[in-house]
Amino acid sequence: MGRWEPNARGRLAQAAMTLYAEQGFEQTTAAEIARRAGLTERTFFRHFADKREVLFYGTEPMRDLMLRAVADAPSGAPALDTVGLILRAAGTILQEDPALTRARHQIVSANAELRERELVKLDQIAAGIAAVLRERGVAEPTASLAAETGIAVYKVAFARWISEPGHPDLPHIIQESMADLRGLLTGHLPSPA
Amino acid sequence: MGRWEPNARGRLAQAAMTLYAEQGFEQTTAAEIARRAGLTERTFFRHFADKREVLFYGTEPMRDLMLRAVADAPSGAPALDTVGLILRAAGTILQEDPALTRARHQIVSANAELRERELVKLDQIAAGIAAVLRERGVAEPTASLAAETGIAVYKVAFARWISEPGHPDLPHIIQESMADLRGLLTGHLPSPA
Repeated sequence: MGRWEPNARGRLAQAAMTLYAEQGFEQTTAAEIARRAGLTERTFFRHFADKREVLFYGTEPMRDLMLRAVADAPSGAPALDTVGLILRAAGTILQEDPALTRARHQIVSANAELRERELVKLDQIAAGIAAVLRERGVAEPTASLAAETGIAVYKVAFARWISEPGHPDLPHIIQESMADLRGLLTGHLPSPA
Repeated sequence: MGRWEPNARGRLAQAAMTLYAEQGFEQTTAAEIARRAGLTERTFFRHFADKREVLFYGTEPMRDLMLRAVADAPSGAPALDTVGLILRAAGTILQEDPALTRARHQIVSANAELRERELVKLDQIAAGIAAVLRERGVAEPTASLAAETGIAVYKVAFARWISEPGHPDLPHIIQESMADLRGLLTGHLPSPA
């Protein structure tokens, strides 16, 4: 074991994002990331399994934060209201650092393997949301239906947010997309903003 | 090039499914599949890039069939009605051979890499549905929202179908799940069947 490096994880993540943006994900090695962060390759591998993991290590803490967002919400709330709360919590986290979220999105979208991994993470988040709903008394298949629908809404809302200059409020776009879906299902589309 | 083998593709697919079920996907090699089908390994690789592809070669023809299902539908139909038509076409195809669909599902679910690939195929189908909707005059982000929601409904309906003994009519379950979602969004849940 090497000595403890202050905030090694954060420095490695920052160096990785910079290098991926500068020269591409494929062209960047773990050794280069470590060097840019002023750390050893060994330290890199103490913090991340591989260079892909740097782009995804935030998804588990984020999932925990999302799922905790409903801890104080009333237990008998309609399933999709609970899902909306969870998704808006994600939106709030993602827009804390829009430049980072956008940089990460550009790197992930440009690489088939990373896009695949992103889909897996979204699938795991859907499973986590369904589990939270079941804990709160929502039966299956309603819990899974609400969770999967929430991810569908999130994907569309995130794509809108990332494509719009100035990045308007993401939780608000998520809420709008949920309203759009309600309009699609009831045949009453809200008028465009 | 070897000589032409009558229905080599179908024989290889059949042999692969049998071996995956008997001894597991991981333990099966392309050479074994070819041998079981009475063909050479070289013939295997003329038809499939790898042993994973045997489980997914049907998804592209299926996507084409799904998307063609709406060719005769009126162009001004509500987006989710069009999506419902497409999904029920998929349901009809999948239940033509329930034993095969179930065997394939069991093999794919038991392997993380295959589950990942399945998610990618579903994502591609969502993109295909969104494109069909745009061609039919549905604007973005409505087209993507309807397509992604359709995939959410399909996933839940398929999980219900696969878990229920006797496999009730899949297109019907898809329609029920769409009605359940409408209930979730309007707060009026249909009474359980």
